[in-house]
Amino acid sequence: MSIATGIIGASGFAGGELARLLAGHPEFSLCYASVPGHSPDLVGKPLAAVHPHLRAGRAVEALPSKNGGSAGSLELVRTKTSEAARRCEVVFLATPPLVSAALGPALLAAGVEVVVDLSPAFRLRDPALHSKWYPAVSRPPERTAVYGLPELNRALLPGADLIAAPGCLATAAILALMPLSGLDGVRLSSITIDGKAGSTGSGHRLRSSGLHPVRSGVVAPYAPAGHRHVAEIQEALLGKGLATVGGGLRLGMSVFGVDLVRGVSVAAHVIVDPDSRLPSEGELASLYRDAYRDAAFVRVIHWREEAVPLPDPKTLTGSNYCDIAVFQDADCGRLVIVAALDNLMKGAAGQAIQACNIRYGLPETLGIDAFAVYPG
Amino acid sequence: MSIATGIIGASGFAGGELARLLAGHPEFSLCYASVPGHSPDLVGKPLAAVHPHLRAGRAVEALPSKNGGSAGSLELVRTKTSEAARRCEVVFLATPPLVSAALGPALLAAGVEVVVDLSPAFRLRDPALHSKWYPAVSRPPERTAVYGLPELNRALLPGADLIAAPGCLATAAILALMPLSGLDGVRLSSITIDGKAGSTGSGHRLRSSGLHPVRSGVVAPYAPAGHRHVAEIQEALLGKGLATVGGGLRLGMSVFGVDLVRGVSVAAHVIVDPDSRLPSEGELASLYRDAYRDAAFVRVIHWREEAVPLPDPKTLTGSNYCDIAVFQDADCGRLVIVAALDNLMKGAAGQAIQACNIRYGLPETLGIDAFAVYPG
Amino acid sequence: MSIATGIIGASGFAGGELARLLAGHPEFSLCYASVPGHSPDLVGKPLAAVHPHLRAGRAVEALPSKNGGSAGSLELVRTKTSEAARRCEVVFLATPPLVSAALGPALLAAGVEVVVDLSPAFRLRDPALHSKWYPAVSRPPERTAVYGLPELNRALLPGADLIAAPGCLATAAILALMPLSGLDGVRLSSITIDGKAGSTGSGHRLRSSGLHPVRSGVVAPYAPAGHRHVAEIQEALLGKGLATVGGGLRLGMSVFGVDLVRGVSVAAHVIVDPDSRLPSEGELASLYRDAYRDAAFVRVIHWREEAVPLPDPKTLTGSNYCDIAVFQDADCGRLVIVAALDNLMKGAAGQAIQACNIRYGLPETLGIDAFAVYPG
Amino acid sequence: MSIATGIIGASGFAGGELARLLAGHPEFSLCYASVPGHSPDLVGKPLAAVHPHLRAGRAVEALPSKNGGSAGSLELVRTKTSEAARRCEVVFLATPPLVSAALGPALLAAGVEVVVDLSPAFRLRDPALHSKWYPAVSRPPERTAVYGLPELNRALLPGADLIAAPGCLATAAILALMPLSGLDGVRLSSITIDGKAGSTGSGHRLRSSGLHPVRSGVVAPYAPAGHRHVAEIQEALLGKGLATVGGGLRLGMSVFGVDLVRGVSVAAHVIVDPDSRLPSEGELASLYRDAYRDAAFVRVIHWREEAVPLPDPKTLTGSNYCDIAVFQDADCGRLVIVAALDNLMKGAAGQAIQACNIRYGLPETLGIDAFAVYPG
Repeated sequence: MSIATGIIGASGFAGGELARLLAGHPEFSLCYASVPGHSPDLVGKPLAAVHPHLRAGRAVEALPSKNGGSAGSLELVRTKTSEAARRCEVVFLATPPLVSAALGPALLAAGVEVVVDLSPAFRLRDPALHSKWYPAVSRPPERTAVYGLPELNRALLPGADLIAAPGCLATAAILALMPLSGLDGVRLSSITIDGKAGSTGSGHRLRSSGLHPVRSGVVAPYAPAGHRHVAEIQEALLGKGLATVGGGLRLGMSVFGVDLVRGVSVAAHVIVDPDSRLPSEGELASLYRDAYRDAAFVRVIHWREEAVPLPDPKTLTGSNYCDIAVFQDADCGRLVIVAALDNLMKGAAGQAIQACNIRYGLPETLGIDAFAVYPG
Repeated sequence: MSIATGIIGASGFAGGELARLLAGHPEFSLCYASVPGHSPDLVGKPLAAVHPHLRAGRAVEALPSKNGGSAGSLELVRTKTSEAARRCEVVFLATPPLVSAALGPALLAAGVEVVVDLSPAFRLRDPALHSKWYPAVSRPPERTAVYGLPELNRALLPGADLIAAPGCLATAAILALMPLSGLDGVRLSSITIDGKAGSTGSGHRLRSSGLHPVRSGVVAPYAPAGHRHVAEIQEALLGKGLATVGGGLRLGMSVFGVDLVRGVSVAAHVIVDPDSRLPSEGELASLYRDAYRDAAFVRVIHWREEAVPLPDPKTLTGSNYCDIAVFQDADCGRLVIVAALDNLMKGAAGQAIQACNIRYGLPETLGIDAFAVYPG
Repeated sequence: MSIATGIIGASGFAGGELARLLAGHPEFSLCYASVPGHSPDLVGKPLAAVHPHLRAGRAVEALPSKNGGSAGSLELVRTKTSEAARRCEVVFLATPPLVSAALGPALLAAGVEVVVDLSPAFRLRDPALHSKWYPAVSRPPERTAVYGLPELNRALLPGADLIAAPGCLATAAILALMPLSGLDGVRLSSITIDGKAGSTGSGHRLRSSGLHPVRSGVVAPYAPAGHRHVAEIQEALLGKGLATVGGGLRLGMSVFGVDLVRGVSVAAHVIVDPDSRLPSEGELASLYRDAYRDAAFVRVIHWREEAVPLPDPKTLTGSNYCDIAVFQDADCGRLVIVAALDNLMKGAAGQAIQACNIRYGLPETLGIDAFAVYPG
Repeated sequence: MSIATGIIGASGFAGGELARLLAGHPEFSLCYASVPGHSPDLVGKPLAAVHPHLRAGRAVEALPSKNGGSAGSLELVRTKTSEAARRCEVVFLATPPLVSAALGPALLAAGVEVVVDLSPAFRLRDPALHSKWYPAVSRPPERTAVYGLPELNRALLPGADLIAAPGCLATAAILALMPLSGLDGVRLSSITIDGKAGSTGSGHRLRSSGLHPVRSGVVAPYAPAGHRHVAEIQEALLGKGLATVGGGLRLGMSVFGVDLVRGVSVAAHVIVDPDSRLPSEGELASLYRDAYRDAAFVRVIHWREEAVPLPDPKTLTGSNYCDIAVFQDADCGRLVIVAALDNLMKGAAGQAIQACNIRYGLPETLGIDAFAVYPG
């Protein structure tokens, strides 16, 4: 099998990571990479001109994929739906939500078999919720997508034509919280997610606050309240039956930029109702280990046995794992779930390929099973 | 006036920062700097041998203090109580809590007028609380200290002989939360502090996890629950009348190491009882501005008007300010208070000198009024 | 005395550093800060809106300068020559060379007493050399400036009306090499400068290569050959009589960007003619200590006696020192001179104020005598 | 084929990188990992206890190697020659030179087929040179090794039993300079290497200067002259016939620590005799491209065509490539060759496996052909 595959929006960070992974993937064959019309200076250049790590060299020519060695020399073209559809069975969209909302349905209509969208355009199932959080992103009401978190929606992926890859913070938060729905006789009072994120999450957009002198060394409250990923976290968790007192989900998130290029860490501070019992750390750990027993890419960490404090995105660079650890703080009736991942891997490109592997009945870990490069 | 001043524990990070500040202070004259007996290789060396930024040079000889230019050439001696007492009116202890617990009372008994201890040995007033959190640190029961947070205990400082300088995370957390006691008709349900801290907070101790390859680029859950600073935060806030439902203070803290050398940022996630009213962001901002109207070193930030997201320790390097911003998250009934500071300044040496300035009736800002060096 | 002072180009990194220093300067009173016409969004905003560390706060109101506390609230205006001339005796230009070439003479013609230009517009004395390296920057041929390196041109500064502040790499390189002209009976064969520079040296300009994800963690050969600072280094050194075999100066420079925000380090690799004698490290050290005996801001380091390898810009953040160490490599007949400085201080704003202090007969170190903030 | 393979010194950075690569290698099967006797706390722990990125997880169980998934759970044992020899055909020594000098011959005598030593114990062929640079490291005079730089000694590797893996700076420098021996009619006058290196190169040793607060943000002249790698560079280049005027090799090196975890960059400043012709950049580029036409892991960069300045170790993290670019500086008769690599890959573990692949007649790139993880 060799599945012709394309990347639209190939010049950004997620696009580059998709290209890196697809270049070494044994089944998906990267044969199309495009950039938007307003980047005419890139059209005609090889992929490696924007992603220097993908430059050709004799070593990479030995890669398993037919296209391995030549991935870096694939020529960037201007995005055209018809051409993409003619050349690709699968298209990954690493584009802004407005672009994805239009391109996704158009590509499917033009004959592409599977579209995996990395933007938030199709993540929220509820149209009202979508309109509230993404008022500018109108999308065809009849077009729905599978929210592509394999640990949540594995069964829905095989038949999917449109897959919405989750956000990086949302992936970490949902994986951190999902198992709590299995707690017996524990009433949760509120959940606060404190997220720390690296700079690739903000993309390639040119703005003063993203310059190295300004962005390095920060602990910057980018989104102290009202981060958009809260919506998809809520939708996912309510679907799993997780609730706090009152029946809904009292959940908020604050996100800080820290001095990382790659990486996301979330701490979910879960307040337990004072009149309810507080589960022990051991009970929590068992619950999580059971929940993720069959998960290829989730590891539950025994914090007290590690030489360095984990989970830590530093130990996950280039890997598709999400590491999770659970803690109990008896003094204040709190559970703390910490989850970390590489935002370009399990938080974007790696997860998109994981979902697509499942979609095609391939081994889930194909092409994304590398150990992290550490320390780095 | 010229007050003879000493530093015990001068070779660590806090000791170096005290030396830097005292070298330029117009009233405190640095005349004694000592290291523990188990650092014999340092005895006899000049201060600048361990703190290279304090090396002599013609420029610093022009500093206001009589000792300014020669601070770096002050010879490190082995700590001896009698010698310190003979040479100093004021002694700053930048020593581990076990050492401080013994030295503080001994120095006072030997005639030192004021001891400012930067360790946690004397921070907790309640002996039971102290024994619970610092079981190994026995201290004379009759010896009490003033908790040296000027914004909390200004009135107690002028008469003090023993001042316990607060911890860096505790300073940020208390300043972030203290004004909430002024909220009218709002019942708080729980408070979770998510702290992010740089590497100087962990001191000079040699251990594998502190090496550059291991420590750089981390978002590491050093203390996911049960951080010792929680005790002093609780004692300070309960003293101010702050409480959550039930009357006590349901307060927890999780601390993450991030890739900073200097700097601390805390986010206090304050959950408001769902049956209570939720104050608006404007109300909160007014409350905080009123609370800190006369505070020399606390600035309340208008987050939405700033070019970069603040508060951020990056903008506070070398400054004694604590910056604070307040947010409301209506969706989940949460207030978020973010506070940032330089852990060696307002979190340690700067604050110790601020307290000592007040102790001696000097202008509070003397010698610690520099702008931050930014960007750096 | 209180000298009315202005900054044109106040929104950049050098502009911000000038503002920070002037706000605390006892004699220069910052009363004017302007931005170019194409930054209309900044006009009318306070300085602190772009330089968050300069925000008002009660502490800074106690600063020595009349304007200290209110520096951050100084309103940014659109640059107008006439207004600047009406309000200022001294103007610092932190503008691109094209702008400076026009503004400098215009401001002097309009009555400003002293203009200190931080751009390269007036650095090169030789018009032919200027045309070669800065072909786009035409300047009035009759207008000459004093090259404002006090260690080189101290005697020329008191009468100057136009002072050209040297480049950061040039400052380090000239200070590193100048004393070599005092070597007796040693024929130098060639000099290669290998420079390492932080990101503030590249300014605020928005471009993809300056974004945090791309710029952090690099060792990037920005200018492997042909850096423009070579011209001013050559002009300064030839003026001091330094030459290599043949009589001219066989001198090249390669510059690498490294993961620093502030800081410059240069290594001058000086090849000695194999038929000439090779001076010892001791001889070199004596030569340098003699050369800088009276220099307020140059320190000659005894490398072998330091606890950490110096010179290092890390130990100079916020300080106006240039640290220098000398080495001999007998195996290959090489001298190595390493010099480090803070590019925004001794490499830009600090040095500009140092030169201006001398111009006005003030103590050279006034307002720029702070110790470095370290570690940070 | 499945070759039983061991790592002695498995707890360090190079040991961890070897483990990561061997865990995914299709032919070498990692079955033994040991630590020195003075690390008793590690004995009995799994590899993943010191290398957290190698923890088991379902994804890695799918790795190609028979041992892939379980590499992280391999139990660390105390080093014993007999046990290592009984269990392994190939042993990698990631040990200090004193240890390697004894263990290497002992393992071979005990029946191990191939020993690859990553220390400098066996790098220098000339016994006098070895005694000069490593006086403390005595080694059996009859035991010689192949210097394991495949681009230099490919033909010698197939028969080798003891392979000395080159140093990281030496690898970059030799690859940067080797092709110059092919220059026709050009007399070189001197060569100076300016190296910039990350912190993993200094290993795991606990010392104050390696702590994060002290080591981060530096540009520190660790070895301004007399770095030990000069010896192996000279031996390799003289063997290739490269010489400077006089017939020997006038070559020096200065090494700076910079704020990297992984990565090495060297700039070779090559001064051409003023009476000789200076080759053009085009001539140089052709020469280098020819020289490395068949090299699997050396890429010659067209600097002027890249979006970001290359070579840069940032673009090489986790990859086995060495990137090289050539420049000419006509003004001072200088050639500049810049080379970059990942010091744990092409500078240590990756290169050791590359050499071992060749030793066993395997494809040179087996198990080490991953693209770099970038940006990271």
